[in-house]
Amino acid sequence: MQRNIDELCIEIERRIKLFQEGMDENAHAYEIAELLEEVREQSKPRFIELLKSFPEDLKADVLAELSKSAQEDALEAIDAKELAEIIEEMDTDDAADIVQQIEEIDEVKAGEVLDEIDEEESKVIRELISYDEDEAGAYMQTELFKAYIDETIGESIKRLKEIKKVSGLDNAYHVFIVDNKDRFLGMMPMEDLVLHGPNEIYRNIIDREGALTVSIRPQDPIDKVIELAGNYNMNVIPVVDEWGILLGRITADDIYDLMEKQATDQIYGMAGVQEESEESENIIKAGKTRAFWLGINLVTAIAASVVIGFFDSTIQSIVALAVLMPIVASMGGNAGTQSLTVTVRQLALGDIDPTEAKRVITKEVLLSLGNGLIYAVVMGLIAYTWFDMPMLGVVIGLSMVINLIAAGFFGAMIPLVLKGLGIDPAVGSSVLLTTVTDVVGFFSFLGLATLILL
Amino acid sequence: MQRNIDELCIEIERRIKLFQEGMDENAHAYEIAELLEEVREQSKPRFIELLKSFPEDLKADVLAELSKSAQEDALEAIDAKELAEIIEEMDTDDAADIVQQIEEIDEVKAGEVLDEIDEEESKVIRELISYDEDEAGAYMQTELFKAYIDETIGESIKRLKEIKKVSGLDNAYHVFIVDNKDRFLGMMPMEDLVLHGPNEIYRNIIDREGALTVSIRPQDPIDKVIELAGNYNMNVIPVVDEWGILLGRITADDIYDLMEKQATDQIYGMAGVQEESEESENIIKAGKTRAFWLGINLVTAIAASVVIGFFDSTIQSIVALAVLMPIVASMGGNAGTQSLTVTVRQLALGDIDPTEAKRVITKEVLLSLGNGLIYAVVMGLIAYTWFDMPMLGVVIGLSMVINLIAAGFFGAMIPLVLKGLGIDPAVGSSVLLTTVTDVVGFFSFLGLATLILL
Repeated sequence: MQRNIDELCIEIERRIKLFQEGMDENAHAYEIAELLEEVREQSKPRFIELLKSFPEDLKADVLAELSKSAQEDALEAIDAKELAEIIEEMDTDDAADIVQQIEEIDEVKAGEVLDEIDEEESKVIRELISYDEDEAGAYMQTELFKAYIDETIGESIKRLKEIKKVSGLDNAYHVFIVDNKDRFLGMMPMEDLVLHGPNEIYRNIIDREGALTVSIRPQDPIDKVIELAGNYNMNVIPVVDEWGILLGRITADDIYDLMEKQATDQIYGMAGVQEESEESENIIKAGKTRAFWLGINLVTAIAASVVIGFFDSTIQSIVALAVLMPIVASMGGNAGTQSLTVTVRQLALGDIDPTEAKRVITKEVLLSLGNGLIYAVVMGLIAYTWFDMPMLGVVIGLSMVINLIAAGFFGAMIPLVLKGLGIDPAVGSSVLLTTVTDVVGFFSFLGLATLILL
Repeated sequence: MQRNIDELCIEIERRIKLFQEGMDENAHAYEIAELLEEVREQSKPRFIELLKSFPEDLKADVLAELSKSAQEDALEAIDAKELAEIIEEMDTDDAADIVQQIEEIDEVKAGEVLDEIDEEESKVIRELISYDEDEAGAYMQTELFKAYIDETIGESIKRLKEIKKVSGLDNAYHVFIVDNKDRFLGMMPMEDLVLHGPNEIYRNIIDREGALTVSIRPQDPIDKVIELAGNYNMNVIPVVDEWGILLGRITADDIYDLMEKQATDQIYGMAGVQEESEESENIIKAGKTRAFWLGINLVTAIAASVVIGFFDSTIQSIVALAVLMPIVASMGGNAGTQSLTVTVRQLALGDIDPTEAKRVITKEVLLSLGNGLIYAVVMGLIAYTWFDMPMLGVVIGLSMVINLIAAGFFGAMIPLVLKGLGIDPAVGSSVLLTTVTDVVGFFSFLGLATLILL
């Protein structure tokens, strides 16, 4: 049941009070954002009006939780000076994300916002937005709890208390240990501080117990962030530069987002759509990307038709061929997509790599061949009965086996070759594949028919 | 360059030493597992031999990090008594996972292993494996750091130190606050313990600052775990029963696994393959699942052929129709897959839901219609030029527009309806869709041709 705006406002009021009492701030910000989205569905002006009436810190937390299209509305409606104040309340990674979005809408406004922000923070944001959205640096946050190797736990905790008061560092979770030049030496979960006394020096703990030193460069691809997080079960990853200096950290919530983004990119890539185009409210943008892949599909479909054209006189003599030929192409396309999908996904998850090409291709060809043989017999019998032509059954059976072998082979090989060449194996591989299975399917079926039936 | 077994053994030796010195245990276990996988590629007996030679605690950590097929080899080769010892070293979630795998291979052996394990732990494992693999309970671990509402931070930390020594609780990260009946009252990051003095009572902190109370039931679907983790930016989720009693927690590394599993299920579901069948070494199992969907595809392809069969005399008079008809079907299938993929993925991410059906379908139909009009003109001109028949261009253009409208409509509607019925919208939806686009494509093209050209 849909709630009306007044009911939503009452609920929002109640949540704001809870937020201000300091209980579960994150949870409340998320829930207020959800309520605001409901208001926005019914009235955009009311949505903007409500958001503007919030206290500054709540505005920041809620803005970060809104959907991308709601954020766009808000960023357009709020002026540069106020945006600057909101952004100053945010963690640097969220702040950079918002500034980047303002830039996409209105570059001049983004410049004004950055000029209004405190100089040091604006410098950090400018640096973060300089990273490409496929680079780890774009997702890092510079707020973290740092301790020096030669200080005691007690000294560092005293500093943590100060930082918490001043900058509102949330969710520290780990202490990042550095030397006096800020070079990263290792990280420890907070619980280790509790377990050791306040007089213990970090150097002694590390000498005795070690500390995890895995880290990432800001220029590394986001796939590497996901790989590290999964392999080492890390819920935060330190980011260091080429001199080993600690720059920031990527936290679990960003790792979740990156994993979802990676999966969406793969799923969309195989279908010829693009995340950035789809999530914008601008339908023309989505249409353009889709049109690109549809255009390529048209070219390959015409290529398959040209193959059919070679056999027009055969079809004219035996019209049953026209009736049956889409079956051969369809089964090839389907079996090939199965092989392709498994190969693309296992490549992405690191379960296989191009050096194992021989094993993967053999497996896929065997699988396709096995199923090809079964359905060749089934379809052969159906065709024989349907058109009362025994040899037509033989032709469709044979061509189906040929096409399914091609499907398994190319379904595995196309993504392996693309990956080997450093190209994303998800994007466009399915158009390439169906071109192969259409051409092989039509050519083998009509070719064999010409040889055997005429 | 591939390393030979001797080189790998030297590297493994070195890592074992580092592991035993206690530095970065998790990191080393993961890296030793990677090295072992390389050994296994060259010689399975050497892989088993090496694994068996490891100290018990390392065996447990490494076994948990191995790939599923490597785990299967190990579980077959190691006897029940030794497996029980290894499992006792594991966290409960990993232990349950391993016992479940032993059960899949050899149920009698699994029973023996459980009998050998310490009674209390075996009870916990039996409970965990009773959950379905789509339920949150299957991924929870019972090791966690619990504090009572009326105790002081100091008292709880003293207990944590004891627990750490006895059971080796790693990565506590949070304190879970309960009442004297073990009912969950809220959680706090460890850093809050550092910030408050040891004499502070938990009740006072919660009264003042609140604590996050979001939790999940063991019977909840894993999709809910992913949703909560994303929405509330949680890197650990408490699991409670229907009386509110704290049972365990699901940690970030498991949430990563669940997110990957969810994405893989979606990608595979759309292609008609299944993760569990594909990741087993047993090629027959993978073949069977794939054969099922290929069989359904065969039935739908035959249905489309029956439609073509209605028009056999039309095709006989104008053989160009046979040449061009796959283009109409292919463009419909492609555009429909774009709509389907976007809808399935956005449903999965919670960006849209079935109540928004009208908006989503309108958007998809508009997008398909737009691109349909463009390519209808393009293809109409091509067909006209190719076969020198102006009206043939009109027929293919019209049928393409009709088929692309159907593609957009059904591409959005099929997953929305499936979701509304509580069925997974990823699985099988693409076979349903291509049936529609094939049938509509062939029927509109050949039907219009019969009406206009004959």
